[in-house]
Amino acid sequence: MKIGLLVIGSEVLNGKVSDTNTRTLADFLKLHHLEILESITVRDDEKAIHKGLKLLFDDCDVIVTSGGLGPTKDDMTKQTIASFLGRSISYSADAEKVASLNYQKFDRPFPGKDHGYSYLPEGFVALNNSNGFAPNLSTKHGNKILICGPGVPREFRNMLNDHFINLVSEKLDKNSFMETVLVRTKKVPEEKIFGEVDPALWDKLSLIGDVSSLPIVFGVDIGVKIKAHSHEELAVKKKEVLKVFDESPIKSAIWHVGYESLEEVIVAKANQKNIKFGFAESATGGFCSNLITNVPGASKSFFGSVVCYDEHVKMKSLGVKEETLMKFSAESRETALEMAQGLKASLGLDVAIAITGLAGPSGGTPEKPVGTVFIGRAVKDHIEADHYKFLGDREILKTRFCQAALHTLLEELEKFA
Amino acid sequence: MKIGLLVIGSEVLNGKVSDTNTRTLADFLKLHHLEILESITVRDDEKAIHKGLKLLFDDCDVIVTSGGLGPTKDDMTKQTIASFLGRSISYSADAEKVASLNYQKFDRPFPGKDHGYSYLPEGFVALNNSNGFAPNLSTKHGNKILICGPGVPREFRNMLNDHFINLVSEKLDKNSFMETVLVRTKKVPEEKIFGEVDPALWDKLSLIGDVSSLPIVFGVDIGVKIKAHSHEELAVKKKEVLKVFDESPIKSAIWHVGYESLEEVIVAKANQKNIKFGFAESATGGFCSNLITNVPGASKSFFGSVVCYDEHVKMKSLGVKEETLMKFSAESRETALEMAQGLKASLGLDVAIAITGLAGPSGGTPEKPVGTVFIGRAVKDHIEADHYKFLGDREILKTRFCQAALHTLLEELEKFA
Repeated sequence: MKIGLLVIGSEVLNGKVSDTNTRTLADFLKLHHLEILESITVRDDEKAIHKGLKLLFDDCDVIVTSGGLGPTKDDMTKQTIASFLGRSISYSADAEKVASLNYQKFDRPFPGKDHGYSYLPEGFVALNNSNGFAPNLSTKHGNKILICGPGVPREFRNMLNDHFINLVSEKLDKNSFMETVLVRTKKVPEEKIFGEVDPALWDKLSLIGDVSSLPIVFGVDIGVKIKAHSHEELAVKKKEVLKVFDESPIKSAIWHVGYESLEEVIVAKANQKNIKFGFAESATGGFCSNLITNVPGASKSFFGSVVCYDEHVKMKSLGVKEETLMKFSAESRETALEMAQGLKASLGLDVAIAITGLAGPSGGTPEKPVGTVFIGRAVKDHIEADHYKFLGDREILKTRFCQAALHTLLEELEKFA
Repeated sequence: MKIGLLVIGSEVLNGKVSDTNTRTLADFLKLHHLEILESITVRDDEKAIHKGLKLLFDDCDVIVTSGGLGPTKDDMTKQTIASFLGRSISYSADAEKVASLNYQKFDRPFPGKDHGYSYLPEGFVALNNSNGFAPNLSTKHGNKILICGPGVPREFRNMLNDHFINLVSEKLDKNSFMETVLVRTKKVPEEKIFGEVDPALWDKLSLIGDVSSLPIVFGVDIGVKIKAHSHEELAVKKKEVLKVFDESPIKSAIWHVGYESLEEVIVAKANQKNIKFGFAESATGGFCSNLITNVPGASKSFFGSVVCYDEHVKMKSLGVKEETLMKFSAESRETALEMAQGLKASLGLDVAIAITGLAGPSGGTPEKPVGTVFIGRAVKDHIEADHYKFLGDREILKTRFCQAALHTLLEELEKFA
């Protein structure tokens, strides 16, 4: 099944918002062993929408649109799609019913049958929108299926969960299986992995599936897309992929196999081993805690953190000595160690991770440039601090500091029985 | 100038990463009063890339690509673009020079003149990549300009900053000016703004420019795109737009005019008024602190936060009474008030904001469903707590709780002299 996405919204192209619906659709499809074939983003403009639809109808079996279903005058998806397909728009009792139920959910009076939500292009079905007002829409055109969802990310996500598989069920090939095995390494650059570490790796993997390689913040994700005619064949091919890695010198750099995020892997491991952890965050400013608390169930092992941006907070809440700050500065190995020790004692943690460094843009010196970070760890009686230098602007540096801290945490969690 | 973007990368379509380069390009162009006309995302596949290029070359004056310039075998942008334009690839001393300088920067030996980086399609220029190894590329084709940048977000951003304006300077129309005036409201639904609050608003604004309306987490952003032939004319039209809002009943719901984020508005205001603030974050888990510390200069007024996920942390670090937690639960008005008071006292703040609630997925009850949040504030001798109910999954709820907390903070900052 070839699936195309048309993102409709000038706001994505003029920098007002980021499109997240492409990622949402890709994530949803992955669960069903499917992928997006291509994605196009166009302005709220009739000609542009027509052009995008034309391209996707040429290439795809299922066309999904997001955006432009709302009540204001820049919401023109319905009219434009109707004109593209040569269908007229008229009042639909079904659409009115779906829309008025949506209003009921929010205890709001439905504006009435003259409201645009009660009108549908000929041959379209109105679908419940479990988190919003505008009905979702669907129709068939020849052997193609068109699904029109909302632009609002949470409404778009619910539309997929509620309707997508039902709408495309006739297209699902029950005898074709696909999976991308994702092997994730850290601390070795892409060129080195496929160069001096294991020059034959790419070709060996290519015998089993389509190989891709993607550098990420702290390492490289290697994907191998395998195809099969049965679940059993897929499992055999997956084992072959893993065997290649198991016999490769890159093995020691692998931190995870699978799509779970670093924070999900951490929460699963800490919960399973019953380890209490937390962060003393200076340079990351709450980033580590925020990522960890995105994971459902984090509260079992994540106890809490101190975001110690000001030096007074480092001293008062974490017991960092004024002398240490004066002698070595706030961005130093010594401060990182005291932050980790102080947090561990004050919150009663098993593992405390401290992050202090320079995220910039100002504050750097020739000896300690922006991008310098110290990651401290305190575990039982053991304390230790690592030192990294990264490149990037403020937000990128926060991300990299955070990834370094989370990898440090994962290393410690793995040492526990 | 019509600008199109081709994002090349299977990883964006199979859910491995989110594309951020569209937003980066849109943000960059906004600074120069430009916009993206359309954006297409395709797999690392020759036919798909050709098709995307065809569409963009048909519509646009400037075509930007991102991705596929790296050293591994799935990086096929250069070959594919060469074949699309009918150009042959050959060794280029210039390309070798640019690439070897990129390696020097990172203290890494250049793999040698046979390396793919030393090869260029005929008529292409190799451009310095200030944060990576692969040279950026550019060429002219008829009256069109093609710019090929890296997929890695920070490298793509630097490519724009370093090269874009120089490369397209001949296309810049010195007599055409454009700006989208962005007026941001809170707490009133989109339908209500253009319905009962001010039914004439949309039409009045449409007399001056193109109106768009975008519901966001806690309100609605209203954009008016104005065009002019001089800076002076642009300024006059902008004034007209603001006058319409100034005379509208929606005026009291406006919290900002402009593209700055809520956290940027907060940091600017707190720094200007010299106000120390911080958060006691339970349900948001560090989200508020992380957003605030993304803003350069936040350290002047943001002192620190306590992420008090576990009840022991609420008691030990913030002085919340065990009795309060037992009697009213951790997710209550009473706990929110004690968290805010405790944080204000312990860190010596002017304004302390506390967030406690249920982000789910589990933990909800019929009386306090998932989505319930209490926002406490402690300012001088004043304490107060608000109560909201939101819909959404865990990450969306954290975002909404955070926006509610930041709007509470902004309200308090505005009261200071």
